[in-house]
Amino acid sequence: MRILGIDPGLANTGYGVIDHDGSRSRLVASGTVVTPASASMPARLQQIYDELTVVVEKYKPDCAAIEQLFFARNVTTAITVAQGRGVAILALAERRVELHEYSPLQIKQAITGSGKADKNQITRMVRALLLTGAEAERALPASSHAADALAVALCHAHSHRYQQLTSSALAAALARPRSTVRLRRPR
Amino acid sequence: MRILGIDPGLANTGYGVIDHDGSRSRLVASGTVVTPASASMPARLQQIYDELTVVVEKYKPDCAAIEQLFFARNVTTAITVAQGRGVAILALAERRVELHEYSPLQIKQAITGSGKADKNQITRMVRALLLTGAEAERALPASSHAADALAVALCHAHSHRYQQLTSSALAAALARPRSTVRLRRPR
Repeated sequence: MRILGIDPGLANTGYGVIDHDGSRSRLVASGTVVTPASASMPARLQQIYDELTVVVEKYKPDCAAIEQLFFARNVTTAITVAQGRGVAILALAERRVELHEYSPLQIKQAITGSGKADKNQITRMVRALLLTGAEAERALPASSHAADALAVALCHAHSHRYQQLTSSALAAALARPRSTVRLRRPR
Repeated sequence: MRILGIDPGLANTGYGVIDHDGSRSRLVASGTVVTPASASMPARLQQIYDELTVVVEKYKPDCAAIEQLFFARNVTTAITVAQGRGVAILALAERRVELHEYSPLQIKQAITGSGKADKNQITRMVRALLLTGAEAERALPASSHAADALAVALCHAHSHRYQQLTSSALAAALARPRSTVRLRRPR
């Protein structure tokens, strides 16, 4: 299964593509769409949409995952990021890529096992989960946005695997012949 | 000049098209893109993008105007509306329609002369500015979202006209031969 993770933004939209075989994940590609602050809002949104469309067409993901947006303060930033998120979701919808959303807490827990992990821990775990040794160093995501995008892709891989395990365990339980209990009449 | 006004949203995206000849405005079309709450976020964003693209291709506006987003509270609503706004802006950008942004205060002042106008006053003034008599009743925008979209289009028509008047007055003043002042030496 090929998963595209997206870390939405206006200045920086991270993306990460992984292949997941049910137990292990392999890095396929990662990068960041960087839009210049000097460009107009329409031009920046179009750049995000265009570049993500190229990513979707090039890597043909089976599904995509994106972080849910929560902003306690700075509504202006929230609005700006949400506009970028809107065109990112559209780029996926136009190519019929199924989208899954995860909260920041779900992503941190899936990647590090803790809801309190910081950015560095996320980046380290993303590398550890994807590759080993020198290969990991070379394929280090170029930005924290790309690492965050890979984190949400890995989160989906894990929760997807968990769902599959759960449903196959359930299917096995249902397929099993019922144990016959013989009631003995008390003497 | 043909102007497309947009009132962004997720459930309801209002649009209004007007023709402005420099002094008067005429209603061309108005409507609302209504997305069902039962649909997924990607499906709703795609519907907004697709229907606005049809509007742009059908009416071929020379420029577009949209309200700036300000939200003091309810960040969740802000994020949702901003995602819809993002794909609306993209639909314009893809067809090279120049976009102008106005604050809610600028729109109210341009339409009613007061920054404190309520929704009903806006709708009444939009009708009064666009048409007269029975024609206005028949062409009444079907929703407050369509009326708001026409309001921002009219706001742009007025401010555009003001800019033109100002720049033509300035051009005339610069083109005028300087008056020669003869100084008479006091006797």
